Amino acid sequence: MNGAESLVTSLVNAGVNICFTNPGTSEMHFVAALDKVDGMRAVLGLFEGVVTGAADGYGRMTGEPAATLLHLGPGLGNGLANLHNAKKARSPIINIIGEHATYHRKYNAPLQSDIQSIAAPVSDWVKTCDDPKQITKHGIEAVHAALTPPGQVATLILPADVSWSDGAGIPEKFVDLPEAPIVSPKRVAEIAKALQKGDPSAILMDGASLSEEGLALGNRIANHTGAKLYCDTFSRRLARGAGRAKISRLPYFGESIMDKLKDIKQFILVGAKPPVSFFAYPDKPSWLVPDGCTIHTLAEPSQNSIQALKDLAAAVNAPEDSLAVYEQERPELPTGKLDITTAAQAVGALMPENAIISDESNTSGLMFLPMTKGAPKHDWMFLTGGSIGQGLPLSVGASIACPDRKVICLEADGSAMYTIQALWTMARENLDVTTIIFSNRSYAILQVEFARVGVKDLGKNANSVMSLNSPDIDFVNLATGMGVKATRSETADEFVEQLSDAMSEKGPRLIEVVL
Amino acid sequence: MNGAESLVTSLVNAGVNICFTNPGTSEMHFVAALDKVDGMRAVLGLFEGVVTGAADGYGRMTGEPAATLLHLGPGLGNGLANLHNAKKARSPIINIIGEHATYHRKYNAPLQSDIQSIAAPVSDWVKTCDDPKQITKHGIEAVHAALTPPGQVATLILPADVSWSDGAGIPEKFVDLPEAPIVSPKRVAEIAKALQKGDPSAILMDGASLSEEGLALGNRIANHTGAKLYCDTFSRRLARGAGRAKISRLPYFGESIMDKLKDIKQFILVGAKPPVSFFAYPDKPSWLVPDGCTIHTLAEPSQNSIQALKDLAAAVNAPEDSLAVYEQERPELPTGKLDITTAAQAVGALMPENAIISDESNTSGLMFLPMTKGAPKHDWMFLTGGSIGQGLPLSVGASIACPDRKVICLEADGSAMYTIQALWTMARENLDVTTIIFSNRSYAILQVEFARVGVKDLGKNANSVMSLNSPDIDFVNLATGMGVKATRSETADEFVEQLSDAMSEKGPRLIEVVL
Repeated sequence: MNGAESLVTSLVNAGVNICFTNPGTSEMHFVAALDKVDGMRAVLGLFEGVVTGAADGYGRMTGEPAATLLHLGPGLGNGLANLHNAKKARSPIINIIGEHATYHRKYNAPLQSDIQSIAAPVSDWVKTCDDPKQITKHGIEAVHAALTPPGQVATLILPADVSWSDGAGIPEKFVDLPEAPIVSPKRVAEIAKALQKGDPSAILMDGASLSEEGLALGNRIANHTGAKLYCDTFSRRLARGAGRAKISRLPYFGESIMDKLKDIKQFILVGAKPPVSFFAYPDKPSWLVPDGCTIHTLAEPSQNSIQALKDLAAAVNAPEDSLAVYEQERPELPTGKLDITTAAQAVGALMPENAIISDESNTSGLMFLPMTKGAPKHDWMFLTGGSIGQGLPLSVGASIACPDRKVICLEADGSAMYTIQALWTMARENLDVTTIIFSNRSYAILQVEFARVGVKDLGKNANSVMSLNSPDIDFVNLATGMGVKATRSETADEFVEQLSDAMSEKGPRLIEVVL
Repeated sequence: MNGAESLVTSLVNAGVNICFTNPGTSEMHFVAALDKVDGMRAVLGLFEGVVTGAADGYGRMTGEPAATLLHLGPGLGNGLANLHNAKKARSPIINIIGEHATYHRKYNAPLQSDIQSIAAPVSDWVKTCDDPKQITKHGIEAVHAALTPPGQVATLILPADVSWSDGAGIPEKFVDLPEAPIVSPKRVAEIAKALQKGDPSAILMDGASLSEEGLALGNRIANHTGAKLYCDTFSRRLARGAGRAKISRLPYFGESIMDKLKDIKQFILVGAKPPVSFFAYPDKPSWLVPDGCTIHTLAEPSQNSIQALKDLAAAVNAPEDSLAVYEQERPELPTGKLDITTAAQAVGALMPENAIISDESNTSGLMFLPMTKGAPKHDWMFLTGGSIGQGLPLSVGASIACPDRKVICLEADGSAMYTIQALWTMARENLDVTTIIFSNRSYAILQVEFARVGVKDLGKNANSVMSLNSPDIDFVNLATGMGVKATRSETADEFVEQLSDAMSEKGPRLIEVVL
């Protein structure tokens, strides 16, 4: 058994059974091992940003790490942006980065680069394995790293000769990790006391606490103690829909957050960080916690936030019936003009139970959350790291993780073009993903931000880099070219018809919404 | 004048007049400065791999640095693979990487990452400017770094508050760099003596020596002394065509190189490195210099190789008439079956004088060099760093650099999909680029490499990651969707007709060659 076979065997034994990849020559033994060893499925992305974004989506929906297999420094570089998003999402991922043979690196061949340096900023754990005898040990360490609460990006750099050499020995047995650490009763009691003082409070939740159970607990605590309940603006995954607990999402812009929080005297953090501005702006604050406000951390992201919420609910005696949930409620089917409101109405009216939403709709998405809050239960995934090109790949991974659930990808045109190759993987794997492209033919957020940073005039160069027209992009052509059935909607009625059709069928679809 | 305006002014004064970009919020002041200050044109790429590859192509054709403007660590990550290629090509490039405001970094906002760590492996020079008073100085340092022979990738990280703050002061004046250092007469004399001994010798050339003048000098020296003359397998740019000096290109596979060089007793390096294998393979050597062979360096890549060749030609008394050039000679127009030979015949028969070839044809390109050696004079650009997705963006940059020359992009289907967004920039800028896609519907090189690394069986997973069918990609649809006129050729006659048409018109075209 060579190194690659031992590694794949170890990973499969540890429950890693999917490998998103775009491999090269240095990964050929690993690819061969994927066929020699039973239990791991290879899924090809035509670009590494698709590969890493898919692993993120898979991790968010299963809580289990997918492997990625990437080709040296440049392959990792191509996947870097969505690894950045995955790290901010705290998704469990195991990157296997092929590298030149150990003895080959000194020759500075064309593909030589410092992989560790590229990997470190997007990884919680990085190791290069230069010894075939260590490869299974390192493989299991990578799984442990990926599964370390709340989830981590682990990167294992695998030289080609370590892959092809014999003597890696018997794969190590995988030992389950301990559960996420429990928050101390003392801490829970302190926070219960703080909440019961009656000062204006906000509970800010993120990460694992945004499950149906966590939200219900947070909601009961908030309602019983009079606190406000918020989730982070860009969470990895939020349980939503009729019958689920109400929660407010923090807005995007710093001044809107400040306005919402201006009277708050204490924050209770549940797997969340204190709010900061997404970007810095001249004469606007970055730190958004009001002056004089105290911050209490109920649970760090790495701690068991659900148990902490249960304990806190008990400590403040929050009754079951203090729970406030969204009523079942759908918007009416829209007709007439197609815009961001009527598009959101149609999605709210038509999305099926158990849908998974991959949301990279950016400025076109303002109406989606209000229009879908009373729709059947669903999960919503946000753009966690701010690096565009996440939405389509995330949908690929989520659909492979949950083949029985409809994935709806809400996608801005500019962001879609970053990783448009994901459509091909949807076609090849026949994924049940409906992609809705919002064609406003601009980087609309930049037009807003341009004004916000204090710049007044949109000159020729500025206009050129913020507009996506001249030529207009025809997403129906692009999707068709990659094997995905596609249509274009120019009126609300057309969109309703096309979306109804997409929701009633299985398989990949794309609808271009012309705004 | 704020920091961004001072920086742009300094760059323009130093001759930097083009900025390939995909900016974000942290770069808005730089974008505004591109309009406030005259002299720099912004060109938008829909993905950063297009941006950096275009800068590489521009640098290769002009010898002058383009600026890129990229959005924090993820934007740089997206452009990393083509910066890797550019660094290996020794192209002059100035990357301006927008960063959070200096005071904002500590908050670990979603887009925070360690930009220096990502930049270092693909940069020869990296600096973060945290002080507006230093920005023009750093800007000029970046230009100097980029222009330091033989050309370098310089990366300047620009925090948003440094961009927007006043007080950057008067832009620094740009002082021309000294020319590339001259090789000492002593070294030239030593090498003349070594060549005149009569041992079987090979002159290996790369970099600036592959100009028309350098090739002629190398060719005369080789013919007069009986040495063999080679260029590196993957050079940044090679002057070719009828009337230009003959040179052999080193093959791709290590064993082919070894076979060619087996009787050589001494190497003369002219801006080149000793040959090494592109990848390592079990039981095959990485170092391809025959045992007992001596290595003489006439010129380091940073030295003036043209002057060194002139001096060497004089020292060995190589007469003008020892020059051997390619005769004017075109293949016949092919008819019948369309394959990699007839496709190459058609290109050789039809390419116009002064064409620029961006070659990422990979396994489909075996016949192009022999079929075009007697075509009218042209320049050929190779995939320098082995990171696919270079060909289309390189064409964008080359065409912007040389708007009066026809650019022909020879592009493998798998590689094309990495940076397919480049087609949109070709359409927007109305670039005179004809892209020829070779659709063999596989990563054919991997099928070859799979066998070469010693793996015998192509199992289900291996087949899945090496084939590009199921579904077939329709490049005519993709190009049309991005505003580029496109056709498909299934016979040699169709290809001849479509290519003739493309060569006789100006503007972007795509032809999908179905193999």
